[in-house]
Amino acid sequence: MSLLVIGSVAFDAIETPFGKTDKIIGGAATYISLSSSYFTHDVNLVAVVGGDFPKEDITLLEKHGVNTEGLQIKENEKSFFWSGKYHNDMNSRDTLVTELNVLGDFDPIIPATYQGSEYVMLGNLSPEVQRTVIERMETKPKLIAMDTMNFWMDIAREELDKTIALVDVLIINDEEARQLSGEYALKTAAKKIMAMGPKFLIIKKGEHGALLFGEDKIYYCPALPLESVFDPTGAGDTFAGGFIGHLAASDDISFANMKRAVIYGSAMASFCVEKFGTERILNLSKEEVNTRVQEFIDLSQVEISLA
Amino acid sequence: MSLLVIGSVAFDAIETPFGKTDKIIGGAATYISLSSSYFTHDVNLVAVVGGDFPKEDITLLEKHGVNTEGLQIKENEKSFFWSGKYHNDMNSRDTLVTELNVLGDFDPIIPATYQGSEYVMLGNLSPEVQRTVIERMETKPKLIAMDTMNFWMDIAREELDKTIALVDVLIINDEEARQLSGEYALKTAAKKIMAMGPKFLIIKKGEHGALLFGEDKIYYCPALPLESVFDPTGAGDTFAGGFIGHLAASDDISFANMKRAVIYGSAMASFCVEKFGTERILNLSKEEVNTRVQEFIDLSQVEISLA
Repeated sequence: MSLLVIGSVAFDAIETPFGKTDKIIGGAATYISLSSSYFTHDVNLVAVVGGDFPKEDITLLEKHGVNTEGLQIKENEKSFFWSGKYHNDMNSRDTLVTELNVLGDFDPIIPATYQGSEYVMLGNLSPEVQRTVIERMETKPKLIAMDTMNFWMDIAREELDKTIALVDVLIINDEEARQLSGEYALKTAAKKIMAMGPKFLIIKKGEHGALLFGEDKIYYCPALPLESVFDPTGAGDTFAGGFIGHLAASDDISFANMKRAVIYGSAMASFCVEKFGTERILNLSKEEVNTRVQEFIDLSQVEISLA
Repeated sequence: MSLLVIGSVAFDAIETPFGKTDKIIGGAATYISLSSSYFTHDVNLVAVVGGDFPKEDITLLEKHGVNTEGLQIKENEKSFFWSGKYHNDMNSRDTLVTELNVLGDFDPIIPATYQGSEYVMLGNLSPEVQRTVIERMETKPKLIAMDTMNFWMDIAREELDKTIALVDVLIINDEEARQLSGEYALKTAAKKIMAMGPKFLIIKKGEHGALLFGEDKIYYCPALPLESVFDPTGAGDTFAGGFIGHLAASDDISFANMKRAVIYGSAMASFCVEKFGTERILNLSKEEVNTRVQEFIDLSQVEISLA
């Protein structure tokens, strides 16, 4: 099934305890599109870049099967730029620079050929822009998933709530779930958040894995213990890409299949952190992905029968 | 198979955001014995209390099938006493009082009837006392598991290393694993710790579950998301009791069975935190335990086949 992805396509400059980069290709929609492209070849990207964005990076996305017809290029403007520095524990980071540039007045135009996309992944953007995408879909998608962040909870809570009410799956991290719900216990937080609209909620817990809530069930996908994390940038978007990519490819939105999708997302995210930026997820083989997914499966499966 | 349990049997006074207790029955060996008693009725306790310890609490242990022949009662001395206050997040606590009393010169005498115990659980105590128990076992047990804490890493590292070298399974939490190994990444920490002797290592991660390392494999048992944690005291010991209790009952020390044992330990610990002290694990039915174990299984099991 076809998948519509919206989010930033941008430049990042990253500093971690292991090194630093100049401006490299980044942005939520970049990671989501690349990650989902390992599962489905019908990825429709909606985003905006400036004239400074390298044509070869657009070609790179196309080589991964990503349709870039919906990628607006504003020749006389500059691309979104984010720069950040990770602390030694890699769990927290300081934002050094945020230049909105073309994102400041982004109008998410959906090409006619994208209409009918059954799956939609709303990458982190202003909740108004995310909602505009939903409103512009002429046929109701089978599933809309959404990422957001604490920034929008701080400055645009009302708009955020309106958008959250319209989506099927919300994907956030544990801190964001606590902030959004005002509850510390994640099980209680999940109940409150699902009462806001989404039928399913994914709470990402970084090195501790991810929780999927829905249909009065909980699934906990543990994260593979890694020997080193090189750069966490984009890991959450890469997770979202693997998750929605598997759902779109299998066209099955049962809870049982969402569990599998969480494993695929987790496996993709575990690759992402191994190198700077998109480097690792640009060059994966089907075998590497399957081997990693199998490691995630082996990590938590157990044969047990109760006496 | 019979299980020898050594550790403190003591008084605790606990304060959490939900309330506080006077002196109640506590101690590592109390929680371990009670928890393991749900799996095996051949639990041999080695510990020491003072004349102030209530006879009815000893009777309570015996009613759970715990053999108290090895429980020394020093009539003219006082029992070990610990008092602590948990912070609002329940993840950290301050120790308010530690009175060693009878534990100060504890000589772990093993009754003749305990000789031949196939399974040994060394609850948190000085590493010298733990090692004395190993040395006094006339036949080599099938499996020796050991708990310890950062306190011994700080003040008795050399003694601790000598004891760790003699055990089969070490059970510690994530902070302790990092301190013991000097490594932040738990996978790397596990390698270093297993090079010190233990063939298996369990790293407890509290609300994030527990990791089992051994035979070049990793098992990650997620923790059931709880709506509230009332009192974390004894949860780690209760985990250890369920773990070793299942191993002793099934008499199977394969990695596959240790995975199951981690689930049983996790399920028991999840009960422990629901009420103050030992209250919850004193009164569990077989049905309650099985239902909770099934919830842990359902939490992470997935049906998936790779394309």
